[in-house]
Amino acid sequence: MPEVNPARLLTSLADFAAIGATPAGGVNRQALSVEDRAARRLLAERALARGFTVFQDEAANLFLRRDGRDATLPPLLIGSHLDSQPTGGRFDGALGTLSAFEVLEALADAGVETGRAIEVVAFTNEEGSRFSPGCMGSMAFAGAGNLSDWRRARATDGALLADELAATLQALPEARMRPIGHAVSAFVELHIEQGPVLEREDVPIGVVTAVQGTKWLEIAFSGEAAHAGTTPLEFRKDPMGAAAAAIACIQGDIMPADPAARLTVGRIAAEPGSINVIPSRVSFTVDIRHPDAVALAAMERRVHEECEAAGARWDCGTVIELRVDMAPGRFDPQVTAAIEETCRALAIRCRPMVSGAFHDALFVGRVAPAAMIFVPCRNGISHNEAEFVSDAHIIAGAQTLLGVALRLSAA
Amino acid sequence: MPEVNPARLLTSLADFAAIGATPAGGVNRQALSVEDRAARRLLAERALARGFTVFQDEAANLFLRRDGRDATLPPLLIGSHLDSQPTGGRFDGALGTLSAFEVLEALADAGVETGRAIEVVAFTNEEGSRFSPGCMGSMAFAGAGNLSDWRRARATDGALLADELAATLQALPEARMRPIGHAVSAFVELHIEQGPVLEREDVPIGVVTAVQGTKWLEIAFSGEAAHAGTTPLEFRKDPMGAAAAAIACIQGDIMPADPAARLTVGRIAAEPGSINVIPSRVSFTVDIRHPDAVALAAMERRVHEECEAAGARWDCGTVIELRVDMAPGRFDPQVTAAIEETCRALAIRCRPMVSGAFHDALFVGRVAPAAMIFVPCRNGISHNEAEFVSDAHIIAGAQTLLGVALRLSAA
Repeated sequence: MPEVNPARLLTSLADFAAIGATPAGGVNRQALSVEDRAARRLLAERALARGFTVFQDEAANLFLRRDGRDATLPPLLIGSHLDSQPTGGRFDGALGTLSAFEVLEALADAGVETGRAIEVVAFTNEEGSRFSPGCMGSMAFAGAGNLSDWRRARATDGALLADELAATLQALPEARMRPIGHAVSAFVELHIEQGPVLEREDVPIGVVTAVQGTKWLEIAFSGEAAHAGTTPLEFRKDPMGAAAAAIACIQGDIMPADPAARLTVGRIAAEPGSINVIPSRVSFTVDIRHPDAVALAAMERRVHEECEAAGARWDCGTVIELRVDMAPGRFDPQVTAAIEETCRALAIRCRPMVSGAFHDALFVGRVAPAAMIFVPCRNGISHNEAEFVSDAHIIAGAQTLLGVALRLSAA
Repeated sequence: MPEVNPARLLTSLADFAAIGATPAGGVNRQALSVEDRAARRLLAERALARGFTVFQDEAANLFLRRDGRDATLPPLLIGSHLDSQPTGGRFDGALGTLSAFEVLEALADAGVETGRAIEVVAFTNEEGSRFSPGCMGSMAFAGAGNLSDWRRARATDGALLADELAATLQALPEARMRPIGHAVSAFVELHIEQGPVLEREDVPIGVVTAVQGTKWLEIAFSGEAAHAGTTPLEFRKDPMGAAAAAIACIQGDIMPADPAARLTVGRIAAEPGSINVIPSRVSFTVDIRHPDAVALAAMERRVHEECEAAGARWDCGTVIELRVDMAPGRFDPQVTAAIEETCRALAIRCRPMVSGAFHDALFVGRVAPAAMIFVPCRNGISHNEAEFVSDAHIIAGAQTLLGVALRLSAA
């Protein structure tokens, strides 16, 4: 069985980490930026040097193709993304893309002819930090979003998406343009877990069977600003009382009752925000996630009920708005079985798990069989310059991806 | 019995409301500003025109004296302050100062000779919005604070207190300088309630028997920022969970159990403040008040206990800092009795009450018998351009002050 080249892969990760490197050891390589274009160029040049074919589509998704025996079969797709958060780490996205490229090189080194072509993909703007929404490239690829609407999006730095997309495509004239959303036989994405489970259990490979559904709610209680010292309880319409009661209740109840549930209040504000004034308005966000759509809907109902009850109890108005509503995704059992079998063959411990974060595979999974391979990251830290993956886990992940790619491209 | 001149008092209130008037009908006449100086000048000129004597002390407290029969007796002091919040109302401070001046004019009109002199005071910087702390003039007058420390204070607009104090004193060369903290026989301050009680009970006069003690606490829970989707409950150190539980508990328990207790959480912040990130730190303020020092200390202990318990339960660090600690003040029973007797004589309904806000009288009360007269304000609204007092309540308040001043200056 062919093997990945550990030294080459680790060097490659270091080469790409230098593009947009931050002083603290992280990466700032936001979508469609000059740094993002430099990373795409480097990857395309390496592909051309190996004799692979380079394609782009109108969303600037980048494809590197190594042909197989039967050109009439749709290719197997492997990869991830190259863009990063503004103070991102070296592995989120890059690990999956560069490991996939290492798979192509290892197959070429070993002279393995696969049944179908294998294509490496770097999807555009997975992070969504410079341009919203994230997973733009994979959503466009899967027909799950409208690229012409997004073209009018403005970056946090003022740039227009349409302009940055055109400039990015033009910066790589060697790439052939292809229509967006070509058929693929399957998609496998290697990624860091971005959570603490694999590390704590000392398991090198997570077989991702599903991606949690996510809903983002914005909740606002409105009461009446009044003097903290002169206003007796019976005159108070205190939205802070309502907010604290609602948050304490949903945070105290929902997660302890269901290990698969996630509930986070990440943002809160009180107006006018004065020490000695009862607030007129308190607003906060609730991020709820669950792998099961029915359970997720039940969580949302519970948040509504508790907030409305707390608002009524404190004589406040309650407004609840749903800002993001992303259905859970189930990965393909045959692809996850291929990952498990590969781990067994390689004698690498693995465990099934659910992804708490979205990934490009969630969207590609809507148009093709897909699954993901997770590797542990230190302390579960991600979206952070301190993000770290051990060399051993990098190699295990890439070798697993190679094994899965061989299984899924054989025919 | 002499009576106040309603037309003159209402005109006077309108004249002063024009100094620093805001488009929304409020007043911006912050301490030691150009507008504050203009108001002091107008009052001093009116006093000189009536033949009263004008004094200032080194804290720029302004005194207007109408002599009595016996110049060896310490004067009775009545008045309040002329400075306002940046978006303040027309009555907070001005009502008490201008009604006191109306008392002097009414006595002069009626040719009443009082036993002791009566002095009207406008204390400097009661509001504390431009320079901290508030009640600076009355604290300095009562020896309860160090004026030389405050001289180095910077305004929100960058000005140095020492400079603004000197400019304010120089702007009124007609006033005689006098040593700070001269003896007074008693102090009576008329003020708007700044709360809803008198209006709701339809009682025109509140006899203020005490001022609540106040403590301001700043509480911070520190946990660990982590991904909202990928971090299971057992890995979370969520300071929002701790904050919500602590606030819900103290807000839900303390005030319902004790009608004299006040507890307000007016400010809260979560860091980094991202929808999909478990916060690393949540901080908030707690304003607690009680007329009884022992009960106030018990409230503070309870806040400590609940916060520490919540921090421990959510595996977070807990830091609690005491920022303001102001002891409760009891007003003088003979002065409050004089207010009650005056109301009875005038057939004006009154009720005893505790002030939820600080006032200059709290500090003067430490060196002389003192009390306050409250009048209702619409919806309890104050520190707001919408602050409003009916003409009838203005006149009732001023007439009560006149009656009290006669009683307390007779001998």
